[in-house]
Amino acid sequence: MKYQYPDDSLMVHTDLYQINMLKTYWEKGVDQKKAVFEVYFRDNPFQNGYAIFAGLERVVHYLSDFQFTESDLDYLKSLKIYSAEFLDYLKNLEMNLSVRSMVEGELCYASEPLMQVSGPLGQCQLVETAILNIVNYQTLIATKAARIRSVVGEGDKVSEFGARRAQEMDAAVWGARSAYIGGFDSTSNVRAGKLFGIPISGTHAHSLVQAYREEYEAFKAYAETHRDVVFLVDTYDTLRSGMPNAIRVAKELGDKINFVGVRIDSGDMAYQSKRIREQLDEAGFPNTRIIASNDLDEKTILNLRMQGAKINDWGVGTKIITAYDQAALGAVYKLVSIEDEKGEMVSTIKISSNAWKITTPGIKQVWRITRRKDGKSEGDYVTLIHERPDQLDELFMFHPIHTYINKTVRGFEARPLLRKIFENGNQTYQLPTLDEIKIYAQNNFNYLWDEHKRILNPQQYPVDLSQELYDLKMNSIKEIQNKVNQNIEEMKINSGE
Amino acid sequence: MKYQYPDDSLMVHTDLYQINMLKTYWEKGVDQKKAVFEVYFRDNPFQNGYAIFAGLERVVHYLSDFQFTESDLDYLKSLKIYSAEFLDYLKNLEMNLSVRSMVEGELCYASEPLMQVSGPLGQCQLVETAILNIVNYQTLIATKAARIRSVVGEGDKVSEFGARRAQEMDAAVWGARSAYIGGFDSTSNVRAGKLFGIPISGTHAHSLVQAYREEYEAFKAYAETHRDVVFLVDTYDTLRSGMPNAIRVAKELGDKINFVGVRIDSGDMAYQSKRIREQLDEAGFPNTRIIASNDLDEKTILNLRMQGAKINDWGVGTKIITAYDQAALGAVYKLVSIEDEKGEMVSTIKISSNAWKITTPGIKQVWRITRRKDGKSEGDYVTLIHERPDQLDELFMFHPIHTYINKTVRGFEARPLLRKIFENGNQTYQLPTLDEIKIYAQNNFNYLWDEHKRILNPQQYPVDLSQELYDLKMNSIKEIQNKVNQNIEEMKINSGE
Repeated sequence: MKYQYPDDSLMVHTDLYQINMLKTYWEKGVDQKKAVFEVYFRDNPFQNGYAIFAGLERVVHYLSDFQFTESDLDYLKSLKIYSAEFLDYLKNLEMNLSVRSMVEGELCYASEPLMQVSGPLGQCQLVETAILNIVNYQTLIATKAARIRSVVGEGDKVSEFGARRAQEMDAAVWGARSAYIGGFDSTSNVRAGKLFGIPISGTHAHSLVQAYREEYEAFKAYAETHRDVVFLVDTYDTLRSGMPNAIRVAKELGDKINFVGVRIDSGDMAYQSKRIREQLDEAGFPNTRIIASNDLDEKTILNLRMQGAKINDWGVGTKIITAYDQAALGAVYKLVSIEDEKGEMVSTIKISSNAWKITTPGIKQVWRITRRKDGKSEGDYVTLIHERPDQLDELFMFHPIHTYINKTVRGFEARPLLRKIFENGNQTYQLPTLDEIKIYAQNNFNYLWDEHKRILNPQQYPVDLSQELYDLKMNSIKEIQNKVNQNIEEMKINSGE
Repeated sequence: MKYQYPDDSLMVHTDLYQINMLKTYWEKGVDQKKAVFEVYFRDNPFQNGYAIFAGLERVVHYLSDFQFTESDLDYLKSLKIYSAEFLDYLKNLEMNLSVRSMVEGELCYASEPLMQVSGPLGQCQLVETAILNIVNYQTLIATKAARIRSVVGEGDKVSEFGARRAQEMDAAVWGARSAYIGGFDSTSNVRAGKLFGIPISGTHAHSLVQAYREEYEAFKAYAETHRDVVFLVDTYDTLRSGMPNAIRVAKELGDKINFVGVRIDSGDMAYQSKRIREQLDEAGFPNTRIIASNDLDEKTILNLRMQGAKINDWGVGTKIITAYDQAALGAVYKLVSIEDEKGEMVSTIKISSNAWKITTPGIKQVWRITRRKDGKSEGDYVTLIHERPDQLDELFMFHPIHTYINKTVRGFEARPLLRKIFENGNQTYQLPTLDEIKIYAQNNFNYLWDEHKRILNPQQYPVDLSQELYDLKMNSIKEIQNKVNQNIEEMKINSGE
């Protein structure tokens, strides 16, 4: 059982190249150079109009526990590629990074920084993998949850049922938390309830009916041992066996139980739910709810509702917990600024023949621009950190690629989204409760236009660069291109061509 | 930091309904009834011709740690739905399940049991969620890895680079392990290396080049601090900057380094790799390898190879660690047999209006049928546990739905795939090492026909039921249908229709 280290640590939950680069920096004496990295994604997930930022809480705990353990160092030593001095250096590393970040529940968009990590170059590098691992998954699931929430009815409950299909155990519990932030009402996962205080829900499975062999006996046993009762009615035959047995037991037990609902997990749910509703109403249970599960997502739910399905509540499993139609967000962590030889911070860029892989240089802030009169969104405005659009009377906003799309905004408010979380290794941000995060996420939708919220072909939300940032980016690209061309010329001269 | 319990436990990593059913069983005095559940999936993932079973090691550890902790019980108490007596019962639960399972690295197929859990009904129920959570993900990734491995060249190395895109942290490490079982050579995740002894690999990122600002300086610093050197050459301009700088540094350092390779992570990799190969060969580095990464999977790799790309090694991230094109396996855990009032085991079935959701009743064994003369596969033969096809001279194998597809097999060997892992709570199986599992998985491919191995439209591998099992299934379906019809009649009589 090699893997069960008592001091298993997330310090080595990183890509090997991070440690190899740190080795270079340390041996070359540049590991203490100040660097700034930013996290962003290139496209909204699910072609959605927005994403919901999540993952900060686990990032905070991860950074607070920044310390190589003995078994980490033993393992690194066993690789025989690191000197005793370097291992000693790792052992004594103290986290003194500064972190700015959006808070959990914030609406966020492609091409804007979600998080900014600054401090000694080597440390910044070490934490990349874990931060992306956390933020990528949790933001993805919170966003998927909001999409699903957006298509169910006002009073409908949506439960996360996905633990058995989650990509291993961390995903089951952190996914349940992310789904709750994004608008789900509960989870079936007891551990997620225990760890995070999420409401949990659960009734019974087909196996209970099979175990009693007689469906009526099974329902009766279940009902006699629970106050709130939901019967799963599709083990043998929903309309001809499950429903009659459920109603019979409910009538027999009367006030002894609270006949909350029946659940269907297979078959034609539009048709069945209508027949079930009739059966329940006729039997005198107009308030008993109909709960559906079975590979649901926002598309199937929308279709069922369009067909007039009489479904009140929704259990969603695989499709939420794995974000099935897009299983990864693809956020990246890129160096945007680095200390030069004179101790000054200079912006840096990465060029690529894939245009979308070019980074935007410089240390940034993201400002959410809203109309003062009604709080409605104008877009996001990404600036260099020293810029203060909140002190301007008018703002010229233009599309960072199609610059002819532009507008001048007046009477606006500008709210900075990247908040200080750590300052030189010290946590300066108090983590909110999960319910505060959930409410914050909900309220954030108020400012957003409906056109950005629809699940199919939403209007693109503007994420613009300030003129200064735009100019910096364009100049950086030119500078690199000139440098490449100059190098080519020099090489030609050197090789005597 | 509510979630950081010192005694966090996987006992509550289960769906609430499992505990609610246990409550019913316990109150009704049937929790000790012997039950048998089986794990299986309904379709091979990725429309592949096979899957590779993985996850047993973690299941074994999970079952070995079967014990509600104090914080688990405190949490359950706080829900105010369980009596003190029931919580006491949970506290004193001792695991005495028996488990049979395929071993890790076994080839497996849709509709056959991968694992069989038997013992007290309530306990069997409790462990469902975690077992599926583990087996679903790990089997999925091992299978995806084998698909990818199957399209790279004989001597090509394939590395798993996906940690940053994994669905949270457990997926990153257990996914790395599963990928290794399925045929990957290494992982970039240091923790996965530490935990499981997987070879780790890693070079440097774009940020190193950006941090030095001059690519040449960056490469030189990196090369001076490492023995084996792979340069990432696409930060600014692969062919006009990255490659010339890499070659310049390699020439300058000569024997001081081992110039293993160059890596490209963007752009047209078919075209670039050919030019890179020319540049390396011309510069006198014919053995330096070209490594590609950038959203690769079996389809892109196959295409690159068809285009004559000069790529030697492959870094695969998002697409392996999330099994991107099918993010969940969908294995289920179904009751197949239960003790009746007389203490005899009776088979049980679940019917569904979705035909593929009907279960196959009875306690089973899976036999791998191969030709004695050359070991080549004839198919799998699923029997009731008491059947012994290995003692027969000929075997009549027929398709369980399209029964006209059939054959009579002679001169065969029949190997049972479900092995004893736990017997009444005691582990009877010695876990193999990871490398033993990997080699076992590799060797298993020898018996399989190429027609089942191709990644597109593979020939379906036969998974047949014995005549006895087939008859049991058909009779069970009829029995249920008769019972439903009879109930309907009785209800009509009772209601005076």
